[in-house]
Formats: sequence, C-alpha cells, structure tokens
Amino acid sequence: MGTHIIVFYPEGKCAEAQAGETLLSVAHGLGVALDSACGGQGACGKCKVIPRLGKVDAEKSPLLSPDEEKEGYILACQARVTGDAVVEVPVESQRGRLQILVRGEHGLETGAPEGPLAERIELEMEAPTLKDNVDDLNRLTRAIKEQRAVEASPGITLPVLQALPKVLREAGWKVDALVGEMEGKTHIFGLQPASERKPVYGLAIDVGTTTVVVQLVDLETGALVGTAAGLNDQIAFGNDVISRIIASEEQSERAAALQEKILETINRLIEELITKHELEREQIICASCAGNTVMTQFLLGIEASALRREPYVPAARHFPGVEADEVGLTIHPRGPVRVSPAVSSYVGGDIVAGTLATGMDEVEAVQALIDLGTNGEVAIGNKDWLVCASCSAGPAFEGSGIKHGMYAGPGAIERVEYDALSDEIRCRTVGEAKPRGICGSGLVDTIACLLRAGLIDRAGRIDLGRPTRRTRVVDEEPGFVLLWGEEIGREEDIFLGENDIQNLIRSKAAVYAGLSILLKRVDMKASELEQILVAGAFGNYLDAENAVTIGMLPDLPLEKIRFVGNSSVAGARMALLSAEARKRTEHIAAKMTNFDLSAESDFMEAYVAGLFLPHTDTSLFPSVMEKCAERI
Amino acid sequence: MGTHIIVFYPEGKCAEAQAGETLLSVAHGLGVALDSACGGQGACGKCKVIPRLGKVDAEKSPLLSPDEEKEGYILACQARVTGDAVVEVPVESQRGRLQILVRGEHGLETGAPEGPLAERIELEMEAPTLKDNVDDLNRLTRAIKEQRAVEASPGITLPVLQALPKVLREAGWKVDALVGEMEGKTHIFGLQPASERKPVYGLAIDVGTTTVVVQLVDLETGALVGTAAGLNDQIAFGNDVISRIIASEEQSERAAALQEKILETINRLIEELITKHELEREQIICASCAGNTVMTQFLLGIEASALRREPYVPAARHFPGVEADEVGLTIHPRGPVRVSPAVSSYVGGDIVAGTLATGMDEVEAVQALIDLGTNGEVAIGNKDWLVCASCSAGPAFEGSGIKHGMYAGPGAIERVEYDALSDEIRCRTVGEAKPRGICGSGLVDTIACLLRAGLIDRAGRIDLGRPTRRTRVVDEEPGFVLLWGEEIGREEDIFLGENDIQNLIRSKAAVYAGLSILLKRVDMKASELEQILVAGAFGNYLDAENAVTIGMLPDLPLEKIRFVGNSSVAGARMALLSAEARKRTEHIAAKMTNFDLSAESDFMEAYVAGLFLPHTDTSLFPSVMEKCAERI
Repeated sequence: MGTHIIVFYPEGKCAEAQAGETLLSVAHGLGVALDSACGGQGACGKCKVIPRLGKVDAEKSPLLSPDEEKEGYILACQARVTGDAVVEVPVESQRGRLQILVRGEHGLETGAPEGPLAERIELEMEAPTLKDNVDDLNRLTRAIKEQRAVEASPGITLPVLQALPKVLREAGWKVDALVGEMEGKTHIFGLQPASERKPVYGLAIDVGTTTVVVQLVDLETGALVGTAAGLNDQIAFGNDVISRIIASEEQSERAAALQEKILETINRLIEELITKHELEREQIICASCAGNTVMTQFLLGIEASALRREPYVPAARHFPGVEADEVGLTIHPRGPVRVSPAVSSYVGGDIVAGTLATGMDEVEAVQALIDLGTNGEVAIGNKDWLVCASCSAGPAFEGSGIKHGMYAGPGAIERVEYDALSDEIRCRTVGEAKPRGICGSGLVDTIACLLRAGLIDRAGRIDLGRPTRRTRVVDEEPGFVLLWGEEIGREEDIFLGENDIQNLIRSKAAVYAGLSILLKRVDMKASELEQILVAGAFGNYLDAENAVTIGMLPDLPLEKIRFVGNSSVAGARMALLSAEARKRTEHIAAKMTNFDLSAESDFMEAYVAGLFLPHTDTSLFPSVMEKCAERI
Repeated sequence: MGTHIIVFYPEGKCAEAQAGETLLSVAHGLGVALDSACGGQGACGKCKVIPRLGKVDAEKSPLLSPDEEKEGYILACQARVTGDAVVEVPVESQRGRLQILVRGEHGLETGAPEGPLAERIELEMEAPTLKDNVDDLNRLTRAIKEQRAVEASPGITLPVLQALPKVLREAGWKVDALVGEMEGKTHIFGLQPASERKPVYGLAIDVGTTTVVVQLVDLETGALVGTAAGLNDQIAFGNDVISRIIASEEQSERAAALQEKILETINRLIEELITKHELEREQIICASCAGNTVMTQFLLGIEASALRREPYVPAARHFPGVEADEVGLTIHPRGPVRVSPAVSSYVGGDIVAGTLATGMDEVEAVQALIDLGTNGEVAIGNKDWLVCASCSAGPAFEGSGIKHGMYAGPGAIERVEYDALSDEIRCRTVGEAKPRGICGSGLVDTIACLLRAGLIDRAGRIDLGRPTRRTRVVDEEPGFVLLWGEEIGREEDIFLGENDIQNLIRSKAAVYAGLSILLKRVDMKASELEQILVAGAFGNYLDAENAVTIGMLPDLPLEKIRFVGNSSVAGARMALLSAEARKRTEHIAAKMTNFDLSAESDFMEAYVAGLFLPHTDTSLFPSVMEKCAERI
C-alpha cells in the first residue's frame, strides 16, 4: 500500500511512486521530457498527459479545451498517484530537442586560434644524461617554453606530475602536452605519448534560459565542427529565471536539481556531439561558456537567491576558471572551463560575449545590440564607452504565455504572410514539419499582417466586422485563426487571441522602451545609431520590416537593422580561441555601465507609450504610418 | 578450501587469507604493526612472530637465535598460510609509536607569523544597497584588500563562491575568510560566519624515511602547540628508499600501497593531535612538508622509479602547491599543502628546509649542515654559495642492520658509559623503559668507549685478551655484552658483535668522507668552518666527543659542533609561517649545487681511509689520539 508503478508512454520510463505524488513530479524524477512552464502551479497548462491504463486522481483545469477533456487530457501537475497507471505524454507536451537553433551567426565569424583556452603542444625532448639531468618537470617546461617562445613556466596539475616520469620514458620523450589557461596562468593538465596523438577540440556553449547551444570547435584550425542545441531541462522548474530561483528556494533538493538539470542538458548535447563525430571525451579539452547571470550561477552551482531581491547583487561578476570535473561537464576532467564575466544581475555574460562578437567595443561608430532571449537586454556603445540595460521583455518572443505559442522547435510557425484579398495565410514551419504552434518570429509577422490588413486596431483589438472568415470569438475571446484544425489534422484551430496579442505588445513595448531610455541616458537619438544588431535564437528568423511595423524596433532604414543570430555563442567561441578575446571580455564587463531601468519612472512612461501599435506617438513611425495609412 | 582465518594477537585483527600467502603480507594487509626492514626478503629478521593456535608453513631462518627457535619464533615473511591460525606478534616485533623524537630543535626558533601559508582574516562589511551593489565577491575581496593593505585581489575556490551569497547574508556580513597561498597567488578557500570563529592551525611535517614528525602550530601566534611523531608505515616495504622504490616497481598495487602508507602515517599523527587538542579537522587549514626527494614523490604519489636509475632524475625539484584533499591529508580539504623544493634525487626538501632553518644562507660565515636521517646528507655554504652532497651513510645510525639495533623508540639504549675498572656499563634508554635494543647514539657511545678502553682495535676488532667478562664469542662472532639477559629478564644478552661495529664504521666513514670531499670541492679545510650543525632525529642524543672519537666528525673544538635536532621540521615550520621563508627555500633549492659523490673516485678513497677508528690518518684526530694514547 502507498507505492504504485507509473509508466510513461511512449518513452517507457517507469517508477515506483508514492500515493499522492503528482504525475509531474514523478515524470521529472524520471527525466521524462514532459513540458512545464509554471513549475507545477497549474497555471501554464503545458504538462498535458492522458492516463491510458489504471487511474489517477486528477483535478479539472480551465486550461484544458473541451476537445482535450473529451480525449481524456489532464494536467500532470494537478494529478496525483492513486494506483498503478500508464500515462501517455502526447506529442504537444513532449519537450523535443530543437532541430536547428543556430543557423550560423550571420557574419559573426571567428578566425584561426591565437592563444586558445587550451591547446595540445607537440614536444620532442632529449633523454636526460648525467651531464643534463635536470628534473623531468624542468625538461618538460623548458621544451614548452622553447616551442612557444614564452618566458613564464607553465604550472602543472598533480595528476600529470604523478605520471610524468613514466609517461616521458615510455613515450621515448616524444609527448603531447595539454596546456590550458586558468585565471591568466597556464598549466599543464594532460600528457600523452605522441604515438597516441588525436585531434583536440573545445566547446563554445550558450547557456540560455530556454535553449542551450553547444558548438564543437577544432582547436587547431578554429573551424566549427558541429552544433547541438536543445531545450534547457530547467524549464521543468519554470520558464523564466525568477520562477526557477523561487523553485530553488523552496526545497534544498530543488536547488540541487536545478544545477543538475542544466548540467544534464549540456552533457546530453556534448554526448550527442561526441557520438556524431566519433570522439573520445578526453579529446574535448576545454569549454567557453556564456549565459545570463542567473544561468551562470546555476551552472556553477552558486546560490542564486540574492539575484531576485533588492538590491539585486550577483555573487560575482568575474567567475573563477574551473576544471571541467569541478563544475561537472563531461569533457576532459581537468580541462579548463571559462565562463564569460557578467555586468550585473540582469545583464550577464551572454551580453558581454555578444558585445565581443559584434566588435562594438573596438570601433568608433556607435551601435546597439538587442539580445532577445527569454529576457531582453540592450547594449549601446563603441570603443570608448558601453552602456546596457535589461528591459524585462518577458518570454513571449519564445512563445511562452501564448496559447498556441511554442519554442522555435520543429513544427513551430516561424513565418506568416496574409493575403487579405483571398483571406489566405501562407506559413512556414521550423523543419517544415507539421504545424504545432507559433513561435516568436511568426507572432511578429502575424501581428504586423493583422495591423496592415486592418484586422486589429492600434490597441491590438480584433475588428470582428472585417470581411474575413478568420476572425472569430472562441471562449469569449476574439481572435484570428491562423490554421484550421482540419488543414492540419487537429480538432482545434491554431488561433491567436487578443490576450496573446496583448502579451506580445507588452514584450515589444519593453524592448522599444529599453532601447529608447538607454539612448536617452547617453543623449542620443535612434537615428544616430550606425546599426542595430538584433541577436538571440529568435533573431534568426525575424523579419525586420515587421519588427518595425509592430513598433518593436525604431523606424530606421531597414539596412541599419542586422540580425546577428546567436551572438552569445559566437562570443563564447571567440573567447575559446583567442587570448586577446578573453582579455577583451574582461574589459567589456568592467567598462560597461549598467542602468537599472525597472527603478526609473521614465522607463515606465516609455513602456506605457509603447503599448500601442506601432506606438502612442505615431510620428516616431512614419514608414509604418504610410503603409497602414488607409486603415489606421 | 583455500581460504583461512588468521588472527593477530594481541591486536586482535583478523582476516581471511589465501592458502600460500605469507603472514607478513596478511599482517600488512590488515595494518598490523609488525616490524619489517627488508620488504619481506627474509633478510632482516625483524618480522618475528609466534604461531599460537593452528598451524602455518614456516621455513627455518638463520636469523632466529636458538632461544627464539625454542620459543617457537618464526619469520612472518617466511611463513605461509595453510590453515586457520592465531599468530602472536611479540613485543620486540611490534612497531611502536616513538615516544619522543623531537625534543625541540636546539635553538632553531621560528618567530611570529609573517605571511603564513594560510590564515584566517576577520571581516566586517557593509550590506549592499542600491547605491553600492557591487557583486558579493568584489565586496569580499575589497574588504580583504583593505584589511591587508594589498593591491592584488585574491582568487576564490568554486565551493566558497557557491555558498558565498548565503554565508554573507546569514552571517550579517561578518565573516572569517580563510586565505591561502598557492604557487605565489592567494586565494579564498574557506568562509564562515564570525559567530562560529575558532582558532586556526597549520602543520609542519617532516616526512622522514624512518620517522615522521608532525607539529601543530598556532597560525596567529606562531606557537608550537603540539608534536606527534611515529615510524613511517612504509617500513613494511623496506628500510631504505631504494628498497621501497624496488617494492613499488614489482606490483602496481604495491606502488599504491606505498603512497597510502605514508599518508596513513601522517594522518594517524594528525588524528592524534586533533584528539589531544580537541580540534575540528577544519581548524587545521594548511600544511608545510619537507622530506627527501623520494619521500616527497611518494607523498605526492609521483612515480619514483627514475630516482634509482642513472642518471638519477627527480620528477620535479619544485613541486606544485596542492589542496589537502588532492594529496590526501585529512585537514581542511581545501587547505594549501606546500612541499619543500628539492635539489636533486638524493638531496631533498629536508636539506633545503634544514638550510633555511639554520640560516646558513643568510650569513657571511661558512657553516656545514650534516643531516643524519636514514641516509646522510651534507650541505656547506653561506649567503653567497651553497653546495651539497648525499653521502650514502646507510641506516646504521637508526639501528638498522645492527643485530640488537633499533630505532630511537621506547627501550632503545641511547646513552652508554663504560667503566673499565669495574667492567660496568651505565645505560639510559629512551623513555627510561626496559631496554629492548640499542639506537644510533648508543652505538656511537659504545664504540667510542670500547676504543678508549682498548677493547677494540682501530679496525674495530674485539681484543678477546682484555680483562673483562663482557667480550665473548657468540655464534663464532666476537663481540661485547652491553646488558646481560638476566639483568633485563631476557634469555638473550644485548650484544654488539664485530659485524655491527663494522656496519657503524662504514656509516661514519661515509659521513666523514662526504664532508671531506665536499670541503675539498670548495677548497676549504674543516677548521675553516665556523660551525658544524648536526641534524636528524639521531642528533638529539648524540655525544659530540664520542662522535669525534670514532671519526664521524672532524676533530674540531667541541663548541664548534652543535646539535640542531630536526632541522627539517624546523624549516617546514618556518615556511609555514613566513612568506619570506617560502621564497628563501626556493632560492636555496635553486642556488644549491649538488655534487654526486658516488660517481667520484676521491670519495671512494676518502671513504676507505675512514674505515679505521678514528681514521687511517691519525694525524687528523690529535685530540682522539691523545685520549687513547696509552692503548692504540
């Protein structure tokens, strides 16, 4: 009594669970890829499952549609174990691996390695004699110094020293040394006979709140060998970093689980690269990571509570270099792992890395970088100064908080065109898969189309009087049908409601307000910017004209708006490959001035003014007004 | 079949052993304190045991006396398991803990700490505000830099950073930081609330081939709080370092066991200090070690084979700083452990530490340091130059290779006076315990007495014609009875045979030759030395006049000969307490020139010339010739 067997179909994972435990908790305990955005509060409706055999004690949820109820859907977080059961995780609730999140970084290229974070040095030494009987370590460091023409002797880790005499002699004094940089000092962390020589690689890792991207880089050529990307498993504890910190505060096991989840995610992606490229773990000898401050603290296992409480103090801005083993990455256990330094609690190492990747910090011209991840951050500056701010854009651009919203994974509608005359929609989905939902770029496109077609007004309200079949009221909410259920073999249509539109309007208003107020702080106009660089997984697909149309970006000539893709991973890769780049990230983090906009009243004013399409002050968007002239 | 139970009495340890396994191997597997000097070769006769119940398959050994045979003694290394058995380890075969090995270092004093290897820094910080919201790490290092008036920021270990936000806030911004030095850089490796403040300590450790000495030092005052000393458990694998290296080469498990044994020894002594002084392990926050090169490599787990093979190359001369946990010392796991740098394969960190302790490297006057441990090393020099040599004196001074010889443990005869008129011997034993054998200082005394009394000639041969009951032939070997069996309740007398005398003569000849040739290399006479400093556990009890009498030390005015005790541990303690001293050890190791005497013909000549008492060339020992004038 009290313990029951729960099986999750189709993964087939099963556990003995206590009566009363929620299905979500059982699923996460097993590592079942079951979606969840609110951390089990019953608020997001993502953790839908269908009991197939046996029974569970489930509460009704208003988040389930009548169709779903009919099909037997329940929310896993609102269902408790009462006996043995088989529970299906339907496709829409499965957290899938993203197909492609980084399609290249749109011109953010890194060159050949110049002082990589770690490297293999090929050495050939004379055997010692009675005349030349310096100690083995001296002989080794002498050879390294000669070959690299440096003065300073590298240090050595104890495990390498322990085996040093044996390895040198057995290898006939022909060895490869693995030399890494840690806190500005070099040290020898590996040694192997030259006869066992194999290529060595490094990783550039973007540790995103929603998505994690791992790039495999050849340390000799600097070439990008492969990329793996996937959802951050921490999503089980909430969609945004604040929910996750709160989750970590509730129980100490949860805090530990949060650290484990991000490591599991990264290690799974590493495993994928190792398998695909037929590597041995020890061939990956270093890793360069970039993430926002909260994710960085989670990754390193640093207590994160203070980050969400006034005065919002990070544990550190410069994080110490650590060995892979110490942090828990499954590469060469002694390989150096470097984490990009942060600016503040809400402007992290991802923005610093992004700034590095864009080269903003090296040129005279003033540019802006807008990174739209799960949050939104803005940086402005040039070689002399840099300012930044977090603008609390929220995760709507990632499909979160949107009824049919989803991450930019397979089946996500990423491009939308609407022909008012024929009332027809043309969509493109990620991976050209069967449409399952809509992601950020699709949302921006849809709202821009609706605005241009006059189907919504400037407040985002649906005009039900227009001649189209697609506007309708569902569950008392007016909205717009993107795809009919029958078109895609679903009972339900893919539908964008007024609430969804409001959600996206709030997000775009925050981005625009963040950029505006930061420009105001440095006494500049948007038109004075040489370029606006838009980064983020989202940015890969974003239509610049539509982004201006909805008032997310200022009304500049479109050639001034450039999508740079994942600038965080590009910066991490630069830091992986270049000593100079690593120094630059330290300088960027040190000289970037953070403005805490949430505390300032003009930000709130600017934000509220942005809650119209494209903006309350239409004179700021002449090109948009022209296009929409006849209707709004 | 095949497995039998073996119990060792009186310790009561028991094991299941394979038929055919030697009792010595079973005993060492169990950690039974059973003596052994030859590593189980049947050559030393130290591992005597008595089977009490059951039976074992034992070979006869010529090393057992008829008395012993009658009592059922066998050698554990020559006895194999054939069935269940209870085996007694008699008192004389029990490796005991030494009662006192360091009676103070005879004036080698260390002062108050100035830049200890690690320290506790008491900090009180202002809580962060929106105006002063620097990151926690910055706030912490800022406070440390202010308090210590230094420029450079210390680094931080990951575990401290992980808990930093929580500890700072829970402690109300009043904390104690543990800051240590590693490879010349400081780093924060511990942090605790000020409310939990406790004194912190460091260890100075002399890692001797035979004896290990651990001193507990108060890091605030520099006071020596306690000392623990014991035999190196590695003795089970041989008395000298070469036998141990050979043992380690035979089986890889033995190599691992050798590392374990030295750590077990040190950790047992640490445990003793922790218990006696009622400390928590984490209160001991650093350790400074000194040992010969082989012992240092064993301690750090560095493969040692090359040390015994031409061209005798050590793995390193400067050993990297490591964390206690990494090397396996059971103190604060992250506390820095420093090992004294070495000069060559056979002049190690103990001599470097000893040189530091004597201050030879800081003064104009030229002095010699003779360290008589299990080997013998000589260093000569002043503030401008330093030379050194190992002189292969062998372990006779430690009682090894002497029939009734023993370490300077309880019951060892350490002082001997002989009154020729009454034919009476006056002895003093270590710990004033019941005499069990004779240690080095007793041997030197005895031989000097015999020489002065004319009972031996200058070649060390017993004159059986002298009027004394004490000279006699036992088992065809002439010798001298120190103590009669009935005096001390033993069947056997304590007897010094001609072979023992020859053994000691070879050792003293090596020391004298080493010093002479090293002086010759720097073109000096012994009389030009300001002082001869004699160090080593042995040195604590050595009678200077007797040492000159047998020709071990040159015939200088006795006030020029000074016993400095354990200079190795004194140097380790100085390095523990002072940054300046740590720098000095690096300078000493770097500037000391090593002479490999074993390869030089004049050393062999000098050695052979020293195989007489006091010397072939009696003109070198005028004071001795005067005292012995009437007889030799």
